[in-house]
Amino acid sequence: MRNAAGREIPDVVGTRRMRPYTGYPTSRCRSEKIHAQRDGCHKILWSLDAAIEAAGIRSGMTLSFHHCYRNGDHLVEAVVEACRRRGIGDLQLFPSALFPVHETLSRYVQDGTVSMISGSVNGSLGRFLSSPRRLKTPVTLRSHGGRWRAVERGDVAIDAAFVAASTADAYGNATGILGSRPCGPIGYAKIDSMRANRCIVVADEIASYPCWPHEVAQSTVDWVVHMPGVGDPAGIESGSLNRRSSETGDRIAALAGDVAAQSGLMRSGFSFQGGAGGLSLSAVKELAKRMAERRIRAAFAIGGVTETLVELHHSDAVGMLLDCQAFDRSAIQSLLHDPDHVVMDPGFYANEAACGCATDMLDIAFLGATEVDLNFNANVVTHSDGTLRHGIGGHQDVAAGAALTVITLPAVRKGFTTVLDQVTTVSTPGADVDCIVTELGVAVNPQRPELEDRLSFGGLPIRSIEEIRRIALGQASNPPRPRVTDGIAAIIEWRDGSILDVVRTLEDSMPP
Amino acid sequence: MRNAAGREIPDVVGTRRMRPYTGYPTSRCRSEKIHAQRDGCHKILWSLDAAIEAAGIRSGMTLSFHHCYRNGDHLVEAVVEACRRRGIGDLQLFPSALFPVHETLSRYVQDGTVSMISGSVNGSLGRFLSSPRRLKTPVTLRSHGGRWRAVERGDVAIDAAFVAASTADAYGNATGILGSRPCGPIGYAKIDSMRANRCIVVADEIASYPCWPHEVAQSTVDWVVHMPGVGDPAGIESGSLNRRSSETGDRIAALAGDVAAQSGLMRSGFSFQGGAGGLSLSAVKELAKRMAERRIRAAFAIGGVTETLVELHHSDAVGMLLDCQAFDRSAIQSLLHDPDHVVMDPGFYANEAACGCATDMLDIAFLGATEVDLNFNANVVTHSDGTLRHGIGGHQDVAAGAALTVITLPAVRKGFTTVLDQVTTVSTPGADVDCIVTELGVAVNPQRPELEDRLSFGGLPIRSIEEIRRIALGQASNPPRPRVTDGIAAIIEWRDGSILDVVRTLEDSMPP
Repeated sequence: MRNAAGREIPDVVGTRRMRPYTGYPTSRCRSEKIHAQRDGCHKILWSLDAAIEAAGIRSGMTLSFHHCYRNGDHLVEAVVEACRRRGIGDLQLFPSALFPVHETLSRYVQDGTVSMISGSVNGSLGRFLSSPRRLKTPVTLRSHGGRWRAVERGDVAIDAAFVAASTADAYGNATGILGSRPCGPIGYAKIDSMRANRCIVVADEIASYPCWPHEVAQSTVDWVVHMPGVGDPAGIESGSLNRRSSETGDRIAALAGDVAAQSGLMRSGFSFQGGAGGLSLSAVKELAKRMAERRIRAAFAIGGVTETLVELHHSDAVGMLLDCQAFDRSAIQSLLHDPDHVVMDPGFYANEAACGCATDMLDIAFLGATEVDLNFNANVVTHSDGTLRHGIGGHQDVAAGAALTVITLPAVRKGFTTVLDQVTTVSTPGADVDCIVTELGVAVNPQRPELEDRLSFGGLPIRSIEEIRRIALGQASNPPRPRVTDGIAAIIEWRDGSILDVVRTLEDSMPP
Repeated sequence: MRNAAGREIPDVVGTRRMRPYTGYPTSRCRSEKIHAQRDGCHKILWSLDAAIEAAGIRSGMTLSFHHCYRNGDHLVEAVVEACRRRGIGDLQLFPSALFPVHETLSRYVQDGTVSMISGSVNGSLGRFLSSPRRLKTPVTLRSHGGRWRAVERGDVAIDAAFVAASTADAYGNATGILGSRPCGPIGYAKIDSMRANRCIVVADEIASYPCWPHEVAQSTVDWVVHMPGVGDPAGIESGSLNRRSSETGDRIAALAGDVAAQSGLMRSGFSFQGGAGGLSLSAVKELAKRMAERRIRAAFAIGGVTETLVELHHSDAVGMLLDCQAFDRSAIQSLLHDPDHVVMDPGFYANEAACGCATDMLDIAFLGATEVDLNFNANVVTHSDGTLRHGIGGHQDVAAGAALTVITLPAVRKGFTTVLDQVTTVSTPGADVDCIVTELGVAVNPQRPELEDRLSFGGLPIRSIEEIRRIALGQASNPPRPRVTDGIAAIIEWRDGSILDVVRTLEDSMPP
């Protein structure tokens, strides 16, 4: 046969059938993908509505979002409202997390615009979804690494990814770091943009080509919408970051610092991560004090990056900051100026279905919890009253990876003990928790006798978890157990996609 | 059922069957992938032999390599020799390119260790493989973007990727930029490491974790071998980069600069790329002169980066350098120090099976050729005598993407004309070539009459391609046509995987 270049091509060479050159572009990663224009090419559409139309969004489709604007996100509601106005319903939302700003979604659940949410729900939306018969399918909660894995492996098929960006170019390279209203790196959206059938970047500002650095690449983006105000950077500091100083909290943080210092892992070139909770941040500060006393420098720390970590980096106590998410403006400023403060995506950070991830390289991790139990299980996803409270975040990934996982929490909170016979919901299994630090002492997982030996020898107040529970019950009562139905409000996945627990819907729930 | 966290899990929720948490890691991207160790984890193996054994390399397998050390690469031969010593044969080699240093492969073809090579071959290896009955399967030549696409889409299944790196950490993050013997970014290996069944990084130096920046990520690497001297950075400057100044060359370069300046595309914020050939580099310098005269600044240039581009960047004539490959040491130095000189992988650069790539954003490109023909087809892969000569590189990708593709070549070379009725081999089709610049004048593709109008108006010596051929034939003769057999030495793919041409084996070939 003769091809479009005028050459004679055999039909078959060896076992290979020869597809002749046609002179036309023939292959696209995904069928019907936009074809890049040669001249003045861009992917700009003029509105979210135009993007919804171009992407062919129909009822029942799965739409994904990232959460990097946190409580300042305006995109989720804007897309859902635009769909509702176009008569599109039964939407399956797949955000990496939701925040109090998203509580208006309950309205869209009630009117049928939204029928599934997979991603953390909290505040009044969490309470709302804890009642029976809210969603056709339960909420699925995954860790950051688990969500990446689920998308990469095809557990979740995304019809369209909507990616909020503080700056993008007209060809789709998008970031959350640049521009006047940054949210921090948007790597959470990277796997969505790679795997979704359609990807729409919605950018606060449009920059000239090429937008660099970018977390989301042109090769994965179909369209770009310019939407000033897509997110409010003030919202990124919301959440569980702030902490009122208290005597109990200070004691727990100091004990956690001592645990780290006595563990043998706090040595030159070690690594650590503190969770986003106030207690974890205080524990990091206590760790830093002990590092300074012994003149120890960490090779790297992983964040959720806050001002605390940035200051440690600036003082050269920490060599590198590996940043998956920015929790305040000083973290974003530092990303722009400090060459050893680098962005990593959640796959690099926490995906267990790969040849290793950064959490596997952690020596010491401080994590919070709502409750723990005698088996060292931790719960971060529900209140003791059974309502959905919080996402898993990196909790599972960090606990599974770190050589020493320390959970910090007050044994008594608001008149109830947090150390239970059984946690209301297992969100991180006890097998991956090495010790629990409370104001009543330090409980070491019996699976780690060598750690208990070290800490005892270091003079730390070691108690069994049962003893801590007994003492706590002298000062407080067990929280009332939630009255649950047979219905399932949420499924808790372990980071590998297996099922760790389910959250039942509540009997005495909010009025519909 | 009760899972390993002790929780009661329903068998099914909705339509989803619940896989219970087992307490063991269960999923890996690729079966049998190395399991990250929690304590002191690393992936170091002590030798190439250990890696070949660990990866389970057997006869008939496909092994991939990148070419960033160019003529300084020592890895391909080391791996093939190690396989031979272990009695492993019938290897299918899949390098991104080979260089004269790899001519020893002919020995391994003859003794049966190697039975297929897909990737550019040149020099004496090219001549050797142009003879009949050398390889069981012909060489397949692909463009840089086409190779990325072929791996990403599964046209080529790689059993093991061997990735030479100047520096890597013990967990597999690997780069060609850092260390004392750098080769420049090794992004060519990125898609191999992502898709290969096994990936072995072979590093000149081992750095502490995390090695940053890196082009190849830990999540895609199984093992790391420390092999000082894996590549010699002196070799990266080899190839077609050097150019002796000549009157003919100077005239062609000046004409090419005029074409660019008169095309209407050389305007503030435009972009360009010059190929690696000496003539293309001279054309870039001529373009730069005209930019300076009109005080025009380019937004970005794409490289294969050389000292020429780095100097233009330092003088602020070019805003950003997008770097897929470093062609000399000053390019590597600049990558370390210039924040707007950034690394892109070949997917970002040139993959047409995506939502656009960087070559699509090019305004002006200067490319070389061995021959052209009356249909504006270009040949960069064979000599006129029919022997395999050179890889496609980014030639197709740039030609297809750039708004103005200029091919520069002398119409007469060594007594023969390079402007033929039909090129010996079509490696870039005439549909993507806008004009051809020779010392005898500028031929504009008749498909671009508006370009011809502009250039005529600008006073350029326009001639039809037929006229240039006639004049050239007054000064020189047609090269003798190669005498070919029915056998096929190489298959030339267009960047989308369709077949552009085949190269026949030669009758009057080297003695076996």
